[in-house]
Amino acid sequence: MAASRLQTPPRLAKSTLRVIPLGGLGDIGRNMAALEINGQLLLIDCGVLFPEDDHPGVDLILPGFDIIEDRLDDVQGLVLTHGHEDHVGAVPYLLRRRPDIPLIGSRLTLALVAEKIKEHRLSGTQPRPVAEGDRVTLGEFDLEFVAVNHSIPDGLAVFVRTKAGNVLHTGDFKMDQLPLDGRLTDLRALARLGEEGVDLFMVDSTNAEVPGFTTPEKDILPALQRVFATSNQRLIVTSFASHVHRVQQVLDTAVSFGRKVAYVGRSMVRNMGIARDLGYLKVPENTLIDLRELEKYRPDQVVLISTGSQGEPLSALARIANREHPTIRLEPGDTVLLASSLVPGNETAVYRVINGLTKLGARVVHRGNAMVHVSGHASAGELLYVYNLIKPRNVMPVHGEARHLIANADLAVATGVPRERTIIAEDGTVVDLRDHKAKAVGQIECDYIFVDGSTVGDISESSLTDRRILGEEGFISVVAVVNLQTKRVISGPDIHDRGFLEDPSVYETVRGRLTQALTDALEDGVDDTHRLQQVIRRQIGKWVSDTYRRRPMIIPVVVAV
Amino acid sequence: MAASRLQTPPRLAKSTLRVIPLGGLGDIGRNMAALEINGQLLLIDCGVLFPEDDHPGVDLILPGFDIIEDRLDDVQGLVLTHGHEDHVGAVPYLLRRRPDIPLIGSRLTLALVAEKIKEHRLSGTQPRPVAEGDRVTLGEFDLEFVAVNHSIPDGLAVFVRTKAGNVLHTGDFKMDQLPLDGRLTDLRALARLGEEGVDLFMVDSTNAEVPGFTTPEKDILPALQRVFATSNQRLIVTSFASHVHRVQQVLDTAVSFGRKVAYVGRSMVRNMGIARDLGYLKVPENTLIDLRELEKYRPDQVVLISTGSQGEPLSALARIANREHPTIRLEPGDTVLLASSLVPGNETAVYRVINGLTKLGARVVHRGNAMVHVSGHASAGELLYVYNLIKPRNVMPVHGEARHLIANADLAVATGVPRERTIIAEDGTVVDLRDHKAKAVGQIECDYIFVDGSTVGDISESSLTDRRILGEEGFISVVAVVNLQTKRVISGPDIHDRGFLEDPSVYETVRGRLTQALTDALEDGVDDTHRLQQVIRRQIGKWVSDTYRRRPMIIPVVVAV
Repeated sequence: MAASRLQTPPRLAKSTLRVIPLGGLGDIGRNMAALEINGQLLLIDCGVLFPEDDHPGVDLILPGFDIIEDRLDDVQGLVLTHGHEDHVGAVPYLLRRRPDIPLIGSRLTLALVAEKIKEHRLSGTQPRPVAEGDRVTLGEFDLEFVAVNHSIPDGLAVFVRTKAGNVLHTGDFKMDQLPLDGRLTDLRALARLGEEGVDLFMVDSTNAEVPGFTTPEKDILPALQRVFATSNQRLIVTSFASHVHRVQQVLDTAVSFGRKVAYVGRSMVRNMGIARDLGYLKVPENTLIDLRELEKYRPDQVVLISTGSQGEPLSALARIANREHPTIRLEPGDTVLLASSLVPGNETAVYRVINGLTKLGARVVHRGNAMVHVSGHASAGELLYVYNLIKPRNVMPVHGEARHLIANADLAVATGVPRERTIIAEDGTVVDLRDHKAKAVGQIECDYIFVDGSTVGDISESSLTDRRILGEEGFISVVAVVNLQTKRVISGPDIHDRGFLEDPSVYETVRGRLTQALTDALEDGVDDTHRLQQVIRRQIGKWVSDTYRRRPMIIPVVVAV
Repeated sequence: MAASRLQTPPRLAKSTLRVIPLGGLGDIGRNMAALEINGQLLLIDCGVLFPEDDHPGVDLILPGFDIIEDRLDDVQGLVLTHGHEDHVGAVPYLLRRRPDIPLIGSRLTLALVAEKIKEHRLSGTQPRPVAEGDRVTLGEFDLEFVAVNHSIPDGLAVFVRTKAGNVLHTGDFKMDQLPLDGRLTDLRALARLGEEGVDLFMVDSTNAEVPGFTTPEKDILPALQRVFATSNQRLIVTSFASHVHRVQQVLDTAVSFGRKVAYVGRSMVRNMGIARDLGYLKVPENTLIDLRELEKYRPDQVVLISTGSQGEPLSALARIANREHPTIRLEPGDTVLLASSLVPGNETAVYRVINGLTKLGARVVHRGNAMVHVSGHASAGELLYVYNLIKPRNVMPVHGEARHLIANADLAVATGVPRERTIIAEDGTVVDLRDHKAKAVGQIECDYIFVDGSTVGDISESSLTDRRILGEEGFISVVAVVNLQTKRVISGPDIHDRGFLEDPSVYETVRGRLTQALTDALEDGVDDTHRLQQVIRRQIGKWVSDTYRRRPMIIPVVVAV
């Protein structure tokens, strides 16, 4: 059932479990959920959303954790299912408000979060590493962790036992039956928890629209090998900087083809260092070289593993494509392999980079022309398995836009979950679980929190609307100084624009009209600058609309002396 | 060979043919080419490019026909290969400069252009309809037209005979062997022209990266029928408003399922009216209804054929998805079929519409989940056929970004065209044809011409840079009135912003510092407002960067009275 028109939720009854998604329902990103029972809160994930063009100038979007602003002392812990930005990127912003919230996650997840905590110079944090099979009690919440595989190692699902019922949250997952590290999504544990009883199943929806089964990570190896086999010059491979298994496959292939490996890009160097130190990435002896040693080798003796797979303009790859990279130059016949997805919204940027590389004479291999990427999320076929294994009493699809959530609910219904037991929630939908029934009981504001520079939360939609107008149309400013006693315009009106036209002489035609309108208004007894500004706005607004059929922002300033 | 670093072309020798692409090489859009021999010019196509986010606020981008500004009287004619916007959309802007340039194109193409000419209120135009097989002599140019099929009917390739050699330009084309209207791309004519000798082959590159063969238009019929068979409520189908054959298939399917048809969207109504009047669209009796009659029918008795397949925010479909359409409301269980491509760059907009429709309970069928679209362009397999049929002496791939042009040249080389006889040109590359050899001999500026409202060509990159800054960061304006005689600040500084922060009280902390800096400068003898403005810019720029780590545009205005 859709919850969008429900309103203020009732007071939470004793021994009822309340679940509120604080992000990630309606977007791919800023994943976060809050569970509440008997006055205590448990949080699951705290990720960022990367803004698109409809949020100009915004750096990051945080989950709506303003909702729990006054309740931070009730938080028993924050469970982090895995180390991707859309699940952990907002942790420092939450910890700024209360640094000692216990952080519960796998070793790799907490190691990646520790880097963020360091960058934000936070102290007093409380990391508590867990592993699959572990049980942890946090006040009213009894947690058990289940191994899941995904496009980053060491992912965990979390099973939360409470007096009011049990919740299983998958985090992001897929069911690769031949994972590179042998760490399977634990079907036996899911079966056992299903038998115990899953009252509310919160399940990853990202690939619910994709029919069939996600291809195993291992199956990209032949395509990787083919690229290496047909490259006899410089070879650059890009991937997400957290995709340890993808990098592992490139490393292994490099060794078999006798190439050394150099990492390119700060996050690649840092994350692969962490992954290696913790044993998630196996780097054969004498394989890695430092980028500064690159010139000691012929181009065909090294593979560069780089960031920039999404066409990010400041990334190493984009700078290579623009011939702006300080050390790496491409020659005709070199090869670039984008071993990565194409995140919707990034197409233009990625194709711009591909065009740049192609113009330099490089061969560009990508998922459009070779099998060099597989998804990290369970497709429809896998989700059917999971529903049949778990037989949940109630289902709340999470992690997706409306189309993904609805497709996922349809899969649940196909396996026998009653339609009325599937909840299509939005961010801020309040869902209460009681007597094995989950029900949307209200809807609260769960706004985007915008990060812009060092500003967090001070930018609202109204500023963004101004930015959109300014960005599309520019502005015209008119400054005039008037003497209210003598009723005369003593300076100006001076007209300037930015982003509108480039020829200031056009304003000569309207300047006289403005002066006249101001003088008339003053003589008519208008004696406050606000009303004089309105006179200017009206005059020039009409002129610009008639003359240019455009609507720049008009900024009149009248100063009275 | 790449031409980007070539410079000023030599004077054109007598009886040498010069070819200059004025648009469409490096972009998908604004297609246009100029041919020159013995002082006479022939133009081929004159289309628009739809701007993306890197050109904020721009409505259209025109080809670089400023290059021929002084040569318009030498133009013998403008050949229009087909009626798509990216080939004819800029015609009115060219005709404004010289209305009587002869326009040579097929009946449908010229009928669509006539609508544009009417909208722009141009008179004295010279349309000259032609058909496949026709020959037309225009000064030094002897033209012959060849039927090609594409995603709009009545497309023509043009063969241009000159004293210096022959050029074949494909326009946009594919080689559907079972076209809906039976009008094949004329392989026999291509073979015959190949035997005569094609010195320069200008060939559509859009799908050169796509392996294999483009699926026939007819093959989407089963998927269309399945959608109709499983719809028992309202059904909306969207498509490009010029895709006559797609609409024909929807019309035919509607008739077989007993549904009436109503067009939704101004361009759909207009274009299908033209296509029907000219006999390109066959509308069975008693099929069409007017949208105003809609309420006389049950939802399952009508199919709506609508614009908006690219998620355009003002289109009928987007307004339906937002519940903002004046007459059409969707109910749960209704169906929307997007029988269209997903043009790169439009993904976010299209998915926004799909999410909106899904939330309303509609089933959305699109090319992601059903075979409801085929391309209008020849894939790699078809291009190989064409190269082998024509055996061109020189090849210049046109219509595409760098990656497409280079992929197309590789196909030519694979069929035996020598690499040095394939020319990877850019907009403005000057190519001379002489003694059966084509060679890039220079590169001239061929800038984008921006249309914004009724402004054509007055917006430059510097305005767009201002818009980008304003759109990302907003601005802070500071207004102060000073008396240069008394060396005193007599009003202000008043600080305002738009799109930056929403709390004007923050400026209290910097206001005193600004007043002090101004006073100091005045007392130090600074007596021009420009330098006083610099003082303000420096002070507030540093403050905002230190405090917020952001870089809004700073606009200081100092008025001296």
